[in-house]
Amino acid sequence: MREFNAAFLGAGRMGMTHLHNLVSIPGVHVLVVADTRLAAAQNGAAIVRAERASDDLDAAIHASDVDVVLIGTPTNTHADLIEKCVRAGKPVWCEKPVALTLEDTMRVVGAGESSGVPVMIGFMRRFDPGYAAAKRKIEAGEVGRIERFRAISCDFTPPPLAYVRTSGGIFVDMLVHDFDLARFLVGEVEQVSAWGSVLIDPGYADAGDVDTVVAMLRFTSGALGVLEGSRRTTWGYDIRTEIAGSQARLVIEAPQKTPLLTSRGLGYAGDHYESFPDRFAAAYRAELDYFFECLRAGTAPAPGVRDALESLRVALAATKSMSEGRPVKVAEIK
Amino acid sequence: MREFNAAFLGAGRMGMTHLHNLVSIPGVHVLVVADTRLAAAQNGAAIVRAERASDDLDAAIHASDVDVVLIGTPTNTHADLIEKCVRAGKPVWCEKPVALTLEDTMRVVGAGESSGVPVMIGFMRRFDPGYAAAKRKIEAGEVGRIERFRAISCDFTPPPLAYVRTSGGIFVDMLVHDFDLARFLVGEVEQVSAWGSVLIDPGYADAGDVDTVVAMLRFTSGALGVLEGSRRTTWGYDIRTEIAGSQARLVIEAPQKTPLLTSRGLGYAGDHYESFPDRFAAAYRAELDYFFECLRAGTAPAPGVRDALESLRVALAATKSMSEGRPVKVAEIK
Amino acid sequence: MREFNAAFLGAGRMGMTHLHNLVSIPGVHVLVVADTRLAAAQNGAAIVRAERASDDLDAAIHASDVDVVLIGTPTNTHADLIEKCVRAGKPVWCEKPVALTLEDTMRVVGAGESSGVPVMIGFMRRFDPGYAAAKRKIEAGEVGRIERFRAISCDFTPPPLAYVRTSGGIFVDMLVHDFDLARFLVGEVEQVSAWGSVLIDPGYADAGDVDTVVAMLRFTSGALGVLEGSRRTTWGYDIRTEIAGSQARLVIEAPQKTPLLTSRGLGYAGDHYESFPDRFAAAYRAELDYFFECLRAGTAPAPGVRDALESLRVALAATKSMSEGRPVKVAEIK
Amino acid sequence: MREFNAAFLGAGRMGMTHLHNLVSIPGVHVLVVADTRLAAAQNGAAIVRAERASDDLDAAIHASDVDVVLIGTPTNTHADLIEKCVRAGKPVWCEKPVALTLEDTMRVVGAGESSGVPVMIGFMRRFDPGYAAAKRKIEAGEVGRIERFRAISCDFTPPPLAYVRTSGGIFVDMLVHDFDLARFLVGEVEQVSAWGSVLIDPGYADAGDVDTVVAMLRFTSGALGVLEGSRRTTWGYDIRTEIAGSQARLVIEAPQKTPLLTSRGLGYAGDHYESFPDRFAAAYRAELDYFFECLRAGTAPAPGVRDALESLRVALAATKSMSEGRPVKVAEIK
Repeated sequence: MREFNAAFLGAGRMGMTHLHNLVSIPGVHVLVVADTRLAAAQNGAAIVRAERASDDLDAAIHASDVDVVLIGTPTNTHADLIEKCVRAGKPVWCEKPVALTLEDTMRVVGAGESSGVPVMIGFMRRFDPGYAAAKRKIEAGEVGRIERFRAISCDFTPPPLAYVRTSGGIFVDMLVHDFDLARFLVGEVEQVSAWGSVLIDPGYADAGDVDTVVAMLRFTSGALGVLEGSRRTTWGYDIRTEIAGSQARLVIEAPQKTPLLTSRGLGYAGDHYESFPDRFAAAYRAELDYFFECLRAGTAPAPGVRDALESLRVALAATKSMSEGRPVKVAEIK
Repeated sequence: MREFNAAFLGAGRMGMTHLHNLVSIPGVHVLVVADTRLAAAQNGAAIVRAERASDDLDAAIHASDVDVVLIGTPTNTHADLIEKCVRAGKPVWCEKPVALTLEDTMRVVGAGESSGVPVMIGFMRRFDPGYAAAKRKIEAGEVGRIERFRAISCDFTPPPLAYVRTSGGIFVDMLVHDFDLARFLVGEVEQVSAWGSVLIDPGYADAGDVDTVVAMLRFTSGALGVLEGSRRTTWGYDIRTEIAGSQARLVIEAPQKTPLLTSRGLGYAGDHYESFPDRFAAAYRAELDYFFECLRAGTAPAPGVRDALESLRVALAATKSMSEGRPVKVAEIK
Repeated sequence: MREFNAAFLGAGRMGMTHLHNLVSIPGVHVLVVADTRLAAAQNGAAIVRAERASDDLDAAIHASDVDVVLIGTPTNTHADLIEKCVRAGKPVWCEKPVALTLEDTMRVVGAGESSGVPVMIGFMRRFDPGYAAAKRKIEAGEVGRIERFRAISCDFTPPPLAYVRTSGGIFVDMLVHDFDLARFLVGEVEQVSAWGSVLIDPGYADAGDVDTVVAMLRFTSGALGVLEGSRRTTWGYDIRTEIAGSQARLVIEAPQKTPLLTSRGLGYAGDHYESFPDRFAAAYRAELDYFFECLRAGTAPAPGVRDALESLRVALAATKSMSEGRPVKVAEIK
Repeated sequence: MREFNAAFLGAGRMGMTHLHNLVSIPGVHVLVVADTRLAAAQNGAAIVRAERASDDLDAAIHASDVDVVLIGTPTNTHADLIEKCVRAGKPVWCEKPVALTLEDTMRVVGAGESSGVPVMIGFMRRFDPGYAAAKRKIEAGEVGRIERFRAISCDFTPPPLAYVRTSGGIFVDMLVHDFDLARFLVGEVEQVSAWGSVLIDPGYADAGDVDTVVAMLRFTSGALGVLEGSRRTTWGYDIRTEIAGSQARLVIEAPQKTPLLTSRGLGYAGDHYESFPDRFAAAYRAELDYFFECLRAGTAPAPGVRDALESLRVALAATKSMSEGRPVKVAEIK
């Protein structure tokens, strides 16, 4: 079995989740944990017993004993770091998104595709057992021709408004996951129509964003879709997807976090998931497993930067539709 | 279509439920509502627009224009009334139980079987869509050889202790429904072992009964079963049955009364049924429909008095086992 | 208790369902069953033991011993029949819709409102235990400010294309139920955007309709909504509604028809409802109960013709949006 | 944070699961993987990058740089290995059971308790999020006085008959998990009554065992319980537990493995878990986390050997009851 010496960049909260998953993959050796905050790098390296810690991300990428790079740094650094990796000929996995603008993302697509170096972007939902099983059923023809798509994406805890201001907007920041799933499960999107409202906190308006959105999709296949998004619920992390086809309906939903129902007072109750680390714990493990399987098999890991680009275009079309009050074709986004 | 002129005896709360079901059956004409309390009879007759009301149950049975009798009177009157009907040659449906003692029940079996008059006893659960579908699957061989049976029967609201004193005990009064289902779905019971406790109200001990029971069944087929019963829950009317076979498992359960889930505070909640009138509303309708279908088709309706007798014997064996602290064979009950 | 002598017009399949419900309402006496097909009227009258049958609908309405009218005739007769009833001063319940055009519906609104005669239109979903409970929770403030609405309406068995041609289109024919629920649960709709596709049968295009639709709603409150509709599924009658508010989420859904789960082969299975008569059986009973409660209490039954008009306007706005490829304000429909 | 140098004994399939969990615990360093089969030890050590592999279990226990031992070897070696660890003063976690006989288990209890060395036995179900949450609710008084307990334990794939012969019988081998849960959630058991049948494979009779069992428990608190067990289902790994109390009912059940429902043909379907590694994946991780938390906090980890002993006594009482056809008090087992 081929062994890998990995550098992991970014030792924040989600970075640590990825690091723990990484060290449990047979044959993967975490050589370096790098973070611009040296203490964070050292702490992360200690916890997973990596050989060394560093605050020099470039050095970690270019170290001669590092042969694969995983990136969990803040969004605005992704594009440059991926480019450096592919130029150095090092396979790279990076948290989504590649970038918030089309230009930056296209630049990375160009670099990646000309280099031929494997690049995978962390749209982890594809690796959730529910979504993965849905994909298999669709590919096996069990669903028939897809007629309708439905997605809902709502966070339980709203992000700080400071984050919202630089997030790219709710479609680029949150619903891009649903656009990725739409493309993964149904196919390319031709047209988007979107509306938004500020219902939760007027601060979203000040930040140039909305907190509640709905959208419709028209796929090139003729299939139709609806989406809903919200920055805050009182009931939990609400992520659900449905596929309605000529042969079957798929509902991807994890309604209950803990295998316990409590009954009292003529009723029963169960609990919901709170956030992506608990709802998608298995997906985060599976996507890294898959990345290394691809490297070993010599196949291109997906989703790659091209996927990230296409999903971003749908998100930008939604943003434009909301702003201009009219349906927008994805082809307009270029 | 053959028309029927029916007498309905007993205009209490459940009697009115049966009466409403009765009048919605095409071709069934409620001629008389009879109750020893004339006002109740008159009220019932008015509500369903029956032709006449009476406080003379015997007269209602023997009226020359009445050709079928339905009995919803108190338990201690069932045996005599059924006997009068079969002697008068009038098909009869009667609420369960036939009687609380083996002797009385056997007497009615004798009368019924020698007369050949159709008699049906209201073990309504058999007609619930869930139990009926389970039966069809078992008969179609989908479950394979049955290996295990599980039943739970718990009331939400405990009965008055005055009722408990004359109820025949929890096995004869409540779990007889489960013994009937056991026989309906699995087959005859060979042996019972039962334990009871007074956990809810010491008044049950004073009434010579227990409020909480468990039991094991050994079927003649070799299959095994467990039962639980309670006079009171805080969460609702808890009636569930499971069949585990060599090919499949059936779970008959109606977890949610209202088609609504409410989510808040990182959890979700639904509601439970409260009692037999709401949980088994469809079964109460279906059992009367079936009774008249049998009369029209000339087939014997089931369950009949013989079924009531056999289920009572299992209940008496459970009672004896609980009292004597040892497994009791059903064959001992005679 | 006030008694009613009712005339029932229309003895088709759903008419018989309503008739059976009607005869089980205490104090309601079905005097006449009328249908332009005399044999159908006679058959219906015989089954529910009505006093007389007739093929003269007008005569039934105007009969001096009839004091309330229920209409279950074909759609194109509703407006005229309701008008005749209100002119005759007879309270009337009528199956939805009032009419397929705004003009006809407005005419009936005018007649109804000037007369003061109670008129109720059969948007039965409001009376389903799930929807009714949702309404109570919203009114009790349990949901907080409503932020999002979601509806799906899909039939299992597609209608004949001949029906489609005169149905008014999928929004007026099917999704009008969802628009009624949107208004019932959330409030008035300001704007609609809708898309449609022909994915199931090219015959819908020939009939001037589509078979698959999505839509977005913007409510005057600022809340947003999404809808999906389809003329055919392979999995059952798919009717679901969600309300997301600042305090809670409500999901009105009846996932399982029969209280039975069958497990085999590392999986489990339950069944779905097939159509409105089984899914909304309780609602059909409850709406008629409520109608007579209103008559007895002297309160105006809802939804009335004005509700039907407003929901129709939303449906027509959706139809116009789909046809013109742009968002349409409901205020444009007049 | 205190660091630990661990020896892991036993590199079989479940051993590898534990090893992967072990290496993801911060501050735990796997120094040695030992297995009497050297190749297995070397393979395991390589996969988790342990410092060394060995076929000498004793040496691994006594190595001066090893300060904690985890045992995942075959059952018949557990007692001796635990004893060696406690004599060497090394905290030890061991897979259940301690031993199949009361004598061996009591010997280990004696050694462990006199030494004061922390010993934890791997009844992992206690650490499943569902069971752990149930325990918290019970301790918080949310359930009130416990009245009834229900457990079901069924494997999907039956074990080889060779294994059955030395397994100690179905109660000692399988249902001991349920007896542990009964004691964990409800309290000590006073009396057991059990029946068994051979329904799946006559080979179980030849092996001196049965394949299908039911049992009743009477707790010292007066609460009652029922249990079911089977060596084989066709639908999956069927592990469910219920607690019914004076205030609430708890149902610990994980009905669906993959967050996906597929609807077609008027029905819907989901999948079940297949075996303990998938159903209890989180529990296996949590029990080791907890073990090291206890070591760091200086508290005694539970369940310990005394718990294993008491649960074994209930299992032996059940075995005796089944064999003698009478209820057996746990106090008889000594």
